[in-house]
This record gives sequence, C-alpha cells and structure tokens, in this order.
Amino acid sequence: MDERDYSAERIERLLDPQSIAIAGASADENKRGYIATKRLVESEYDGEVYPVNPSYEGEILGTEVHPSVSSIPDRVDLVYVVTPAGAVPTVLEDAGEADVAGAVIFSAGFSEVGNEETEEELIRIANEHDIRFLGPNVMGMVNVPSDICLGIDASYGEGGLSVISQSGNLGMNLGVATNKAHSTGLSHFVSIGNEADLKFHELLPYFAADDSTEALVLYVEGMSEGRAFLEEARRFTQEKPLILLKGGRTGAGKSSAESHTASLAGDADVVADVYSQAGVVTVDSFDDVVPVYQALTDAPTLSGRNIAIMTEAGGVATITADSLVEHGMNVPELTEETQEKLAELFPYSPNLENPIDTMVTGDTASLHGEAAEILLSDPNIDGLMICGGYGGYGVGGTGIELPMDDASAQAQIESARRITELPSEYDKPVVIKSTFTPEESEALAICRDGNVPVYDSFRDASLAFQSLAEYSEAVESADERSDFNAGSGADGLETLEEAADGTVLAEHEAKGVLEEYDIPVAPYELVSSAEEAVEAANRFDEELAMKIVSPQIQHKTEAGGVALGVSGESDVRDTYEELVANAEAYDSEATIDGVLISPMLEEGVEVIIGAIQDEEVGPVVMFGVGGIFVEVLEDVTFGGVPLTEHDARRMIEGIDGKEILEGARDNPEIDEDALVDLLVDVSELVAENPRISELDLNPVFCYEDSLSVIDASITL
Amino acid sequence: MDERDYSAERIERLLDPQSIAIAGASADENKRGYIATKRLVESEYDGEVYPVNPSYEGEILGTEVHPSVSSIPDRVDLVYVVTPAGAVPTVLEDAGEADVAGAVIFSAGFSEVGNEETEEELIRIANEHDIRFLGPNVMGMVNVPSDICLGIDASYGEGGLSVISQSGNLGMNLGVATNKAHSTGLSHFVSIGNEADLKFHELLPYFAADDSTEALVLYVEGMSEGRAFLEEARRFTQEKPLILLKGGRTGAGKSSAESHTASLAGDADVVADVYSQAGVVTVDSFDDVVPVYQALTDAPTLSGRNIAIMTEAGGVATITADSLVEHGMNVPELTEETQEKLAELFPYSPNLENPIDTMVTGDTASLHGEAAEILLSDPNIDGLMICGGYGGYGVGGTGIELPMDDASAQAQIESARRITELPSEYDKPVVIKSTFTPEESEALAICRDGNVPVYDSFRDASLAFQSLAEYSEAVESADERSDFNAGSGADGLETLEEAADGTVLAEHEAKGVLEEYDIPVAPYELVSSAEEAVEAANRFDEELAMKIVSPQIQHKTEAGGVALGVSGESDVRDTYEELVANAEAYDSEATIDGVLISPMLEEGVEVIIGAIQDEEVGPVVMFGVGGIFVEVLEDVTFGGVPLTEHDARRMIEGIDGKEILEGARDNPEIDEDALVDLLVDVSELVAENPRISELDLNPVFCYEDSLSVIDASITL
Repeated sequence: MDERDYSAERIERLLDPQSIAIAGASADENKRGYIATKRLVESEYDGEVYPVNPSYEGEILGTEVHPSVSSIPDRVDLVYVVTPAGAVPTVLEDAGEADVAGAVIFSAGFSEVGNEETEEELIRIANEHDIRFLGPNVMGMVNVPSDICLGIDASYGEGGLSVISQSGNLGMNLGVATNKAHSTGLSHFVSIGNEADLKFHELLPYFAADDSTEALVLYVEGMSEGRAFLEEARRFTQEKPLILLKGGRTGAGKSSAESHTASLAGDADVVADVYSQAGVVTVDSFDDVVPVYQALTDAPTLSGRNIAIMTEAGGVATITADSLVEHGMNVPELTEETQEKLAELFPYSPNLENPIDTMVTGDTASLHGEAAEILLSDPNIDGLMICGGYGGYGVGGTGIELPMDDASAQAQIESARRITELPSEYDKPVVIKSTFTPEESEALAICRDGNVPVYDSFRDASLAFQSLAEYSEAVESADERSDFNAGSGADGLETLEEAADGTVLAEHEAKGVLEEYDIPVAPYELVSSAEEAVEAANRFDEELAMKIVSPQIQHKTEAGGVALGVSGESDVRDTYEELVANAEAYDSEATIDGVLISPMLEEGVEVIIGAIQDEEVGPVVMFGVGGIFVEVLEDVTFGGVPLTEHDARRMIEGIDGKEILEGARDNPEIDEDALVDLLVDVSELVAENPRISELDLNPVFCYEDSLSVIDASITL
Repeated sequence: MDERDYSAERIERLLDPQSIAIAGASADENKRGYIATKRLVESEYDGEVYPVNPSYEGEILGTEVHPSVSSIPDRVDLVYVVTPAGAVPTVLEDAGEADVAGAVIFSAGFSEVGNEETEEELIRIANEHDIRFLGPNVMGMVNVPSDICLGIDASYGEGGLSVISQSGNLGMNLGVATNKAHSTGLSHFVSIGNEADLKFHELLPYFAADDSTEALVLYVEGMSEGRAFLEEARRFTQEKPLILLKGGRTGAGKSSAESHTASLAGDADVVADVYSQAGVVTVDSFDDVVPVYQALTDAPTLSGRNIAIMTEAGGVATITADSLVEHGMNVPELTEETQEKLAELFPYSPNLENPIDTMVTGDTASLHGEAAEILLSDPNIDGLMICGGYGGYGVGGTGIELPMDDASAQAQIESARRITELPSEYDKPVVIKSTFTPEESEALAICRDGNVPVYDSFRDASLAFQSLAEYSEAVESADERSDFNAGSGADGLETLEEAADGTVLAEHEAKGVLEEYDIPVAPYELVSSAEEAVEAANRFDEELAMKIVSPQIQHKTEAGGVALGVSGESDVRDTYEELVANAEAYDSEATIDGVLISPMLEEGVEVIIGAIQDEEVGPVVMFGVGGIFVEVLEDVTFGGVPLTEHDARRMIEGIDGKEILEGARDNPEIDEDALVDLLVDVSELVAENPRISELDLNPVFCYEDSLSVIDASITL
C-alpha cells in the first residue's frame, strides 16, 4: 500500500471541516440519523450541514435533504456516516465521487464482530478515492472550538486538552474529568475505532499544528503501527506534551482489552519504555491524566529535580517532603543567603531549612509572594511547591485557624498576583497544593489562570513535578535520542540474508556475526578433532570451556555436551572424545559440527542484552543485570532501535539493580562506556539485519575496563 | 515510674469531660485566654465551664471567674491550660489539689524549645497528684459529639473518624478532608503534642470503647513507646480499624520531622512492617486516609482477593482490571452459571467475562441491582466493584450519553436500594467508582448512606479493596499473631548476662548461643595448635574453611585470617601456622584464641536473618534473601519479637524475591518450615536475652529439607 497523505492540512478537513454531510440522516425521531442531524443543525457549528438520504425528499429540521453526497452542489469536507453497516461502501463510493476529504464512520458491524470483508472493502474504496476515514465503530468526533459534535453529546468546557482514544467511553470520562478540574477543558475528542484507515500516528501532525490543542492525551490498548507512531511522537513531543494512558498493563486488563478491540497489544513494559524514549509521558492511572496535563501545559520546564517546599506547619512539611522524594524529587538544602533572607521575613519560624515552615501569623498571607521569590532565586532550587493553607487566608468557614480578615484576603490576592509572575521570570515552576480547594478563593483562581497549577492532593502535586521532570528531560535531550529510523536493512550481512527462517545460529556463527559489528566476544575456536582441540588449547593456555556444536542439539548440557574447567593435553583430548560420544548417544541422527573451545574467563559483573521484535513497536533492545535481577525480578529496560548513546545510557540508568554496576557487593565498578557501546552496536546489528527475530547475549561479563560476550544466540 | 492509669474510664474524663476549667481565662479580647473562654462558653457544650484567673474578679462573658481551680465548688474533670509556660506548674499543683482528672496544656515553651526542666516538673506534679495530661504544646482537643473544642476552631461535620496527631495542623487538614468527603465526619481530634505524659497507646482503650469512634487515624512521626503501642494496637484492631500515616518515611521527611518534634523516629521500614503485624493499616499518603477510612468502616470484611467488575464499557473495564490487579487483587473468571444468568439480563453485551461490560441500553439502570446480586452470589467472587456511569442515569448535564429520562433515574434509585442490601446479605463488599461524583445523584447518596463506599477515582476504589483485604486478613489471623509480650528476660543465658556491654561474641561463641536454642549451625571446632587442626580436619573429612579467632581482629579477611577450601594434612598444618602468623603481623598486640575450623558446606539458597533493637518498636527480627536482594535492593522484612509461626510466614511471604525460595534459577525449593522454625527460634533467643543488641546470621544456607547457619555474630 502506498503511503497515504496525513499532513496536518489534509487531516484538518476531517477534524475541523468547513462542511459536513450526514449520510443516513432521518426524519424519524427515534433513529440515530435524526438525532445526529438534530444535534448538528441545532449546534453553533458555523459550517454547512447537508443531510443525505436517497429515499427521503424535502427537509429535516428546516434543512434540505440531498439524495446523495455527490449531488450536493458545494464542496463537502467530511461525511458523517450513520447508516447501517451494509450501506457504508455505497456511501463511501458516492463520497469519493464528490471529492470529499474524509469520513467519520459511526456505523458498527465490521471487524469488531468478525466482518473483516466489508471493512476491507471500505479501505479499498477509500484508497481508490483518496478518502481518509475514522472508524468504523467510532463513538464520535468532537471539536469543541468549532462546535462540532459527532456521535456523542459534548457539554464540555473548552480548553486545550485533545484526546485520541481507543475507547470512546473512556474519552468521554476524560471530558467529564476535565469538567471537574478547575482550569482545564477539552479541545478535540477523537474515537479512533477499529483503526481501519486512519491510525494514531497519522493524527499527530494535525494536533501538533492545531492552535487550540495544548497537549494530546492518548488512550491506547494496542496500536497497529507503533513504529510509525514512534517517529511521529518524537516530533510531536518536541512541540507539545503527549500523555499516554496504556490499557491492558496487567494480565486481567490485557484479556479485557482483547475482548473488546481487535488490537494486538505489545508487551506493556516494552512499549512503556520505548514510548518514553520518544518523549511520551506515560501515566499509571486514568486519575493522573488531568493533573499531569495541567502541570505539563501550565508550568515552565523543570531543569532539575531540586524542589523547595513552603508550608505553615511541620507535619505538612514532613509529609510533603516524603511525597516529593517518593516521586523522584530531591528536597535540598537552601543557601545561607536564602535562609538569612527568609529569617528576616519570618522571624518566628521554627524551621527555615527546606522544607520551610513559615507558621501562620497575621503577616503570613502578605509574605507568600516575597518568600516564593526568595526560594526561586536560590541556585540550589529548580522548582517550588507551596503546600498548606495558602488560598484559605481570609476565606473562612473551613475549620482551619487562618487569619480570616479582609486584610489577609487582600494580601493573599496580592501575593497570588506576584506568584503568577515568578515562573516565567525565573523559568522555574511553582505548584500549589492547597487545603482550600475546591472552595476556590480568588487567590487560587488567580494562580490557576496565571499558569500556576493548583492541586487538591499531595499525590497530584508531587506527580506534577515528576511528570514535569520527565517531560523536561525529554525535551532537553531530544536531539540525542533515537529518530526511530531503523534504515532499509540494505547493509545487512549476506550470511543472515541467505539463511532460512527460523534458523538458530550455532554459537560460533552467532559470535562471528557479533564480531562483524566489533562486539567483543570471548575467544573461541571450533575444532573437529581431538588433535585440533589440543592445538587450540595450547594456543589459549588457560582452563577451557568445551561445548558440542550440532544444529540438532540445542540443549547442550542436557546432552552431556558441555565441559568446564578442562586443562592439560590428555584432559582436553579425552573431553573432546567424550563430548562427541555423549552427543551421539543423545541423538544418533545429529550432525556433529565439532566442539567449540573457549578459555574460561575471569567472572565479571554479569549483564544480559537481548533483542526482540515487539508486536507493537518493532525491533527493541533489552538490557538487564544478570542472574536474579532478570530471572526473578524482571528488572530489565527496553529501547527502540536504533539506539543512540543517550538512549543506551538511559536504559542502564533505568535498572533498579544499577548499583551492581557501580561496585556494590565488592564488585568492581564496571566500564559503563563499553556497555553503552555494546548496546549501540547490538542496536546497529539488529537495525541492519531485520531478519534477526531474537538475539540473546547471556551472559556478558563486564570488567573495570572492558567487557566480553560469553555466550550468544541469534534466531532468524 | 509506676504504670499510670489509662483505662477507658479514666481517659474519658479527659477527652469527654463533664466540666472544664480554663486556666488563664481572660477578659482581654486580644488574648488567647479570652478566645478560648468565648469559644467554650458560646458553644453548645452541655457541661460546666469555669474560667479561672487569680488576678481577675467578676465575670467573663457572663460566666463567673474563679481565682483557682481548687476554689471551684464542684467537681472539675479537665483543666484547659492557656497560661504562659512559667505558670503551668502552679496551675497543675492547684488542679491536683482539686482532684481534677486531666489537663490539656496548650501552653508552649517546653522541651520543643529545649526547656526540658519545666516539662519534667509538670510530669512530677502530674504523677504526684495523679493527673493525666495532653501536651504541652498541643494544637487542641476536639470532641465533636460533645461539642467540645479546645484550641482550634472546629466547624467539622460529625462522623466516626477520630484522630490522634503529632502535628496539629495535619489533624486539622484531615478534618477539612472529611468535610470534603461526602459521608464522613469527625468524632475526636487529639493533638498529642510533646507526649510528655499521655502517650499514643494510652489513648487507645478509650477510643476502642468510645461509641462515636468507628475507626482511629494516627499521624505519627516517632512514637515514644512503640512497644507498648504494639500491644494496645493489636487489641484495638480486633475491635476497630486503626489507620496509620507515618511522617518521615524518606530522608528529607525524617529530617523535617526531627526539626519540629522531639520524637525519636524508628526506621520507617521497620515500623511499617511491625505495625502491620499488629493489624494496623498503614497508608502511603495523606490523600489515602479518608478513602481507606470509608472502606474499612462502611464495607464488610473481604474474605479473599477475587473481585468482580461491572462496567458499561470495554475501556473502563480494562483500566479497572489493571488498577485492581496493580493493587494486589485478582479479577478471576466467573462460573458458567453466573455467565448464563448475566446473558439473560444483558443479551446484547459484548463481554460477560469478568470484567463484565453491560453496555448502556434503556434497561441498564434497572438491571444493576440484579446483576450485582448475580455477581456476589458467584462462589469465585469475594467482592464487587461497580465502575462507570452508575449514579448518572437520569441525571444529565454531564456529557456522557446515558438515558436521561425519569424512568432511568427511578430505576437507578431502586437498584441502589437493592445494592445497599447485598453486602450484608452476602457478607461481601461492594464498592462504586462513579463518573458522576461529586455531582451526587440520589442513587449515589443511597449507596453512601447504605454502607456502599462511593469513590471518584480508580485509585481510591482499588485502594479500598486493598486496605479491606489487608485489614480483613489481620482480623482473621489475630489469634495467630504476636501478642508482643517479649517476657521478662529471666530465662536468658547466663553467659550473655555476665558479659560486658558492647561485647562482640567470637564466631564459635555466637554459634554456641544459637545451639542452646536448637538452631542448626554448620559444624565448627576451635583449635589452638596445628596438631589439633589436623585432628579436627580428619574428623570432618571434607574441604575446610579456617578462620583466625581473636577478640582484637574483627575484619578477619583483611588480616589474612581466612582460608577456604583447605584439604590434606600438610595443607591444614601450613594454613594454621600461616593464619596465626598473619594475625600476629596484622596486630602484634592481638590475643589469638585459636583457629575456627568448619567443613565447606554445599552452597544452599542464601538467606540472611538478623535482629536489632529499633528505637521506636524495640526488638525486631529481620529476614532477607541473601546477597544482592539485601545489599542492593534492601528487600527485607521485619517482625516484632516474639514472632509466631504465622508472623514468620508473613515475613517470608513479604519478600519481593520470594521466588528464589521456591526454586527459581535452578535452585531447589527450600524447606520453608525449617526457615519458619529458625525465625521463631531467633525471636525466642532475642526475647529471652534482651541484652542482645544485634544479631546477624549471614549467610544461612537453605536446602530442600534442612538449613544451616554458616556464619553468625552477636553483639551485646
């Protein structure tokens, strides 16, 4: 299939159309075709609306009905299809003749119920007529700024949050969640349905260009073209935040997802790591979407993880510090200068170490702005969290003893004005966690409107910093990250191109492949007689590992085909004969290629590197610290191919057991640069040889100034 | 100091007094003594109020002022002290003469600012006159049902949540949080201040007996008598839930805590494990307190972790399943019978496997009650989560397409009535997560009032099940858990009682102590000549480990004092001489007791067992899987002494790397019963010998049918 056009301009005709035809419009009040028409006709949509029904003449709700899309005299951007499934191909043919740009196919009854055939027909027609369509089986498409609401009843507040969702209902839940939040609203909501034509990644350029969209939220159970998405996501995240909620992270969730979509989900851990590599901020819960959106769209980026905390009470200071640290932040010491300035402001404060406790006095409300500025001007500090009664001075009625007079209320409003100026002045975010939401004082409203996010919970406020740190790091390092262009595969090794599918390379073949990419492997030699074995042993002049090589024998140990710690001429000779004899006894049909001889290397710090083809995101490299960490704790990280050095370093940093590489347990501190090189080389090998379906370097021994691949396997 | 009376009856006179004297009452409107008097006099408090001021005659706000507490003609239960710090001892003496039961000392300026002396005087006076007091330096004491509000302005809704807090401000925040929640309110709020007299545990019997308290919430930074608390907490949690928020879990949090209280906090990981052993439910965030309170006080116990999910949409089903599994729940299959019954109810549903998707039809609102009953009657199911639009049928105005007619609203109200009957009928909890909070439909109000907790977030609803499971398991196994009575220490070993403080036992001495408690240790022999070494070697007839024994040499390896894999007469002899020579070279002053000889045992699965004296909760046993897990991942669990078998098993279950014990990585599955015995024996050893300050069994080798302590150290 040719690459279809999904430029922002092209998709705009679909998501922000100037004219809409409703195929399946009806005058029967009980039918969806009537409701759909009524909503659009009675809405404040500025464009043209054309009800279409071949078997109805006259008007519906005062609007002329056309017998076909192609009979409409004016240009039609979008056809909204609400006919039964069987009529959709005809509608699409008709629309194609009218040079319509796109369709939103609400009609269900296609691949989601096993009717692949009609769905394929739709794709064929759309290709032929160059129509791009959403659906079939979409819950709706909403464009709040343009007052377009197809399929669902949108009474949402207008804002900058756009959604593409694989579940229509969840998208709507998100609309309700934005309604509940104070300063957030919806821009677009797109239910992507079966992804038959338009895919997730094809909508990204439109949303990157769309002025009304401040950030894009995706609900994804499984993406059909994850690889193409990575490239687009990387571009998108350099412009705007992209927030991902992944459904089906657990076994129960995944089987639920499979029961209601046709999507093939990749491994949740793999996709989380790889999407993060593309700058996507993944959230763990639906509950986190709106708070994270608020942080990422309101606050400036966070250049480090050092946060100052300003509260009026010791207990609040303590749990705020706990919460921030548990979200990956630091609560560092303030400079002496800062502490001196604060002491002038708050002479009775019991603690002006970070987290600072201003106490509540008659003056506190008036001092918040100045104190915030002092904290933000501290070079040790990257961001500020104001946590406690702020927002409640002069408000009253809440049971907390704050000054409730008008002077305090007024002082608080003035400090709010000052606080909203600070983030841009100092290029550092300020986040407020107030006891007084959602009662909403004027001061809090000023903060919200002034790009200072205000939260109701300690978790959300901490998460705000965590997601800001993550997104800021992604933006900062965008140029150093993978472009996810894995190349054409044209530079691959001939040996690999020629072998049959499913081939498992023998260990020495696999190691040979690695050597082509300058990957340091432990020395090895394939010998085919006891004499050759002795000669090789003499050359190595160390204790040896000897392993049978036979394409029929994969489980060498089980076949008695492995001997370790062999040394001395006669021992080598005997071992050779024994391994061959064992192998023949194990499988009399087996072809014996010989015995692989390697010196027993000093044990290093064991790591594991692998590569797989993920169903959703394609080729990825895996990294883990060897042994228990991988096998019991599944402590591994993934990176999409091709890896940059920066990507490789992030993969290493992301391991829980990272300390092991830094000299824990009497190990030496390993050569991390060599490990980074190895990951990048493996990535290159995989990128240039797309026929590799699985690669496993296990173990790799890491030393203080080098590393060595001990065992390797490659499957095509 | 004698044990003071803290019976429920005694504390009741303090927390629910029939009469209150205000020491420091004032007619000056700017003084706290006036505000305190005004609040109490103008409140709806039914008891008697007596302003006290020796230098004021007449009335304050129409109430007669007494010159001293002892001059009040009637019985006074409580003195509320708002005088300056210096006057407090006199007030307390005076109150003691009047046979007052208790005091709430608001006055600050004691140990929290280094004035230990006056605080000790208060304690002495209170002891002499048998007065129990809260404070000094408390933020207040509130009893909502009795309309008593000392120290803080309580405009809180009345409910069943009682709080004891080390931070007055956080307690007040909790009051505001209950105000925001729909069906929760406050019963008591006690700021415990400096814990100079009354301690956390001394308030528990009162709250256990108090009818208005449904559950007790504690905010604790560091408890002064954690051990006594454990005993009381165990008793309390068999009656009512006890929810703990621990401040200072992280380094930053802990140093913040230390800056504003005088409390010595124990290690946060230790106390979390040990309090959980006593049935306390610990929450990770302030945000979790009210949701967990709602679950534990509204819903019946949860007899297992198998949850059914009922939603109207696939996406919601998926993320709900993810969220529950990530909170430790299972989402199991339903029986065929259940699925058949559901299919009759929801013939158009795309999925009636758990999580079920009922879809939204005109009938759905009327079917929720019946469907909930079908799910709860399934023997595979322990609890039900209803998640999605429930609560929003017939409500309208929210943007989600649910039937908005009166019939749907009415049907939903009827189903709500049915749903509230089900938890007690089936003894299984139902939890609702509704998109339509906090708009609050009549149906949701019925559910809340009918003990079906309703939540706004996926996380809170999942946490509800998690905390229910935890608390239910604690209640269920209460008889099998430790009573935390570690005994008198009278049965200890004489050798340990006689040794000096700080003594580190030599390895063979430590192993000798272990053997007294039937703990299996690897064989060992102390020899003091090369000849004896050879004789011992012959008796063992295996490869040997040989280690120097000298009280001056703790770091044996560094001193060249360890040899492994020694075998053969001459080798043993030479090694003996070499170890002694090395030791002499290392430290010419060292006394050499000899060389410890042990056979090199086959490597088993390595575990570590330790015991320490925690500053907060006293003697605890530690368990971890050896090596990396302990050293890099700090994957260890703790149990308070004395351990029961059940406690020991929980400690083993609580390890992340537990799989290692079950045969992961080609290891054998170890003898868990032997490990449980070992933990219990170590606990007994520590309980009976309170002089042991530290014990370390590292490593212990575990085998399929036995285990052996390889190395041991004991410090007194």
